[in-house]
Amino acid sequence: MRTFLHVSDIGDIEKALAEAAEVKKNPFAWQHLGRNKTIILIFFNSSLRTRLSSQKAAMNLGMNAIVLNVNGDSWKLETEMGVVMDGDKPEHLREAIPVIGSYCDIIGVRSFAQFENREFDYNETILNQFIRYSGKPVISLESATVHPCQAFADLITIEEHKAAPRPKVVLTWAPHPRALPQAVPNSFAEWMNAADVDFVITHPKGYELAPQFAGNARVEYDQMRAFEGADFIYAKNWSSYTEYGKILSTDRSWTVGKRQMDVTNNAYFMHCLPVRRNMIVTDEVIDSPRSIVIPEAANRVVSAQVVMKRMLEGLQN
Amino acid sequence: MRTFLHVSDIGDIEKALAEAAEVKKNPFAWQHLGRNKTIILIFFNSSLRTRLSSQKAAMNLGMNAIVLNVNGDSWKLETEMGVVMDGDKPEHLREAIPVIGSYCDIIGVRSFAQFENREFDYNETILNQFIRYSGKPVISLESATVHPCQAFADLITIEEHKAAPRPKVVLTWAPHPRALPQAVPNSFAEWMNAADVDFVITHPKGYELAPQFAGNARVEYDQMRAFEGADFIYAKNWSSYTEYGKILSTDRSWTVGKRQMDVTNNAYFMHCLPVRRNMIVTDEVIDSPRSIVIPEAANRVVSAQVVMKRMLEGLQN
Amino acid sequence: MRTFLHVSDIGDIEKALAEAAEVKKNPFAWQHLGRNKTIILIFFNSSLRTRLSSQKAAMNLGMNAIVLNVNGDSWKLETEMGVVMDGDKPEHLREAIPVIGSYCDIIGVRSFAQFENREFDYNETILNQFIRYSGKPVISLESATVHPCQAFADLITIEEHKAAPRPKVVLTWAPHPRALPQAVPNSFAEWMNAADVDFVITHPKGYELAPQFAGNARVEYDQMRAFEGADFIYAKNWSSYTEYGKILSTDRSWTVGKRQMDVTNNAYFMHCLPVRRNMIVTDEVIDSPRSIVIPEAANRVVSAQVVMKRMLEGLQN
Repeated sequence: MRTFLHVSDIGDIEKALAEAAEVKKNPFAWQHLGRNKTIILIFFNSSLRTRLSSQKAAMNLGMNAIVLNVNGDSWKLETEMGVVMDGDKPEHLREAIPVIGSYCDIIGVRSFAQFENREFDYNETILNQFIRYSGKPVISLESATVHPCQAFADLITIEEHKAAPRPKVVLTWAPHPRALPQAVPNSFAEWMNAADVDFVITHPKGYELAPQFAGNARVEYDQMRAFEGADFIYAKNWSSYTEYGKILSTDRSWTVGKRQMDVTNNAYFMHCLPVRRNMIVTDEVIDSPRSIVIPEAANRVVSAQVVMKRMLEGLQN
Repeated sequence: MRTFLHVSDIGDIEKALAEAAEVKKNPFAWQHLGRNKTIILIFFNSSLRTRLSSQKAAMNLGMNAIVLNVNGDSWKLETEMGVVMDGDKPEHLREAIPVIGSYCDIIGVRSFAQFENREFDYNETILNQFIRYSGKPVISLESATVHPCQAFADLITIEEHKAAPRPKVVLTWAPHPRALPQAVPNSFAEWMNAADVDFVITHPKGYELAPQFAGNARVEYDQMRAFEGADFIYAKNWSSYTEYGKILSTDRSWTVGKRQMDVTNNAYFMHCLPVRRNMIVTDEVIDSPRSIVIPEAANRVVSAQVVMKRMLEGLQN
Repeated sequence: MRTFLHVSDIGDIEKALAEAAEVKKNPFAWQHLGRNKTIILIFFNSSLRTRLSSQKAAMNLGMNAIVLNVNGDSWKLETEMGVVMDGDKPEHLREAIPVIGSYCDIIGVRSFAQFENREFDYNETILNQFIRYSGKPVISLESATVHPCQAFADLITIEEHKAAPRPKVVLTWAPHPRALPQAVPNSFAEWMNAADVDFVITHPKGYELAPQFAGNARVEYDQMRAFEGADFIYAKNWSSYTEYGKILSTDRSWTVGKRQMDVTNNAYFMHCLPVRRNMIVTDEVIDSPRSIVIPEAANRVVSAQVVMKRMLEGLQN
């Protein structure tokens, strides 16, 4: 495994879930793989879960983990090619990336969508430079369009909690005061479309996800109808893809509350966190026994560890 | 040991001091306890000694240490319950804490008094949320009202340097340009009251510590009289507890200098550091051979290591 | 080895190069030396390569590495003696240094020239306080006047790439929008003067390096003439030493491009990075096959590891 961006990178999903279960049961069983290996985790943006769970996963595997905050620790990085660098950015990604690559065995990169240019973001321009120039396996720790470690952890969590063999899973948009990237819903949709679930997306008009992520998922604009009989509710805000980066609605009737949960099949509530309480979801729902946001976050160690383990296995050859 | 805030958490003081001596002599003898264990050290505020000594103590015990600067690395955290989170804080402590707890075995938290509300601070509202919601043992790395790792290190240092079996120890207020928390004098008073020393507190009127920390310590408003015959002088600034967070005096005659030290029993000079030279203490005193601020700071590794060791022992069961 | 600032600290250069080759071949062969040893890496300034390569070198040697960003993580430090500390700096270097020393076995310090006072900078006032007060071996990770880990890595890189036994090496000034320290050219000159190379320095008038670093190197003010027949071109900007910290020229004809490289002996292009493209060097040259800036940066692990290894060997006695 050389890159981890898309569900296709993980190969057979059932096999990946079985491996996740094994890793969760015996987290320290593969430390021979990580001996004298180093992962560098690069953050262009804030992070709590990703930062901590990636370090934990690396340590479980016996690896060294080095964390780099690009803006606090290091030099501001120029990302455009061909420019005269006479401004406030003293280093170019074109040098920084192969240098970082020369100091480690695996690279993880957090680099959010910048919302200046949809094509720049949707080409995963930053992450693809890491893939092209580092010479090392690269993990997206949430990049411009995807958050695969999260989506894999979500799938593991659904697998652990599902009662029916093919549960109904609903991804619902919810309001938020700031314009957020589509990375989490994109990856969640991509992974649910690949998994054995009945998947529905619900959001106000104008919030359609990019077609390559929405795939053939059923889209339902009536949130209450979408929630009927659901086994899992996955709430998340995102900004518009079509009117790129715009906030088209702040309709608080989409805030997930008891009213909506009552029409589900006693659904579990999920969210990737951080979550704005009483905007995305009411205190009542997120504090209820059906809220599984904490076990979901805990599974971030498991998903990261499976990915790193496979990359380490690839390095053995 | 599930929490470390108060002197009562350490149990028998003589036993704790004996254990500290053992740990100092053989710092690497308990690495089996820390194998595959992780401590997360969370900083809401700046730190030098605590940050470094806690990492060192964890490494001595064979543990992994992950450091998280809440404001630089991660998301700003909401701490109030029941609010609509539509402001600048994208994550609630109520999620962040159990998530952090799920990624580690022990948590250390630095979170200073905020001085907005004495009850909020003196209830240790932030730290108690970590204790309640993390599911993991929690160490105060200086919280709103206590700094127990410091006070334990202070006690170890007094034990190592005392000539008489029951030395006279004086805690003296000293001036400072900014309003500082009471955490250090609170803990120092609490630990000295529990230890076998003759303990005196001296400060201008209005600087009385909270009764639960001052206990039955003798309070002397005349600094020179308090210093007479002292074996250890412990200087520290703090703001008023009664007029909460206020600076009531900037009287430089309280700056510890040769004049005061001359009436002591050739006392050792102590301070938790960082110290403002020529405000708290003159260069002459802090640079004298009787100043033991550096060995005192060095003992921060020892106190932290005893605490972590006991917590790790508790995890074995 | 107790300090690493100057080429003289490394002793015999041929022996050091042979050791570097050995370390590069078997990076993990000396982990017994680093067992239970800790290096603290202190950054007063930004860093990418130094930060990462020093951590990697320490890990290769089995050491624990603790990174401290003085301004982000810790307290602002007072550096002047004898002052009344009533301003915005709560801690004095005079305490911070021995405290840090008490928590580790080796210290690395990044502390750039401040350009306020040439004597303060050229006395290496900050670094020398670390040497004097820490009680531990100290490595300059670029201090006011030197960057020895870089210069040693440069020498290793030249050794690996040279075709002739005594190659011609040219250090050339190049324009830059901001006033930069002389640390890199100082150390490069010092190391080249000590090595078996034909060394030439070229720069506009007024950019003469301090005599203790320039030594007997040939200075050539005509860049094209300097480049004739060169085997290695080492580009770097620096501000004036004589008119201390001033920018005397922004002449873009000094930007290293094809025109200049064409008169060399098919020279390799080197730069310590970060580099401002199309200011210091054109895209065409830095992206050419003769550019060795990435292997040069990769050798930063090797040079750091040789230095740390020797310091660890010194601790065994």
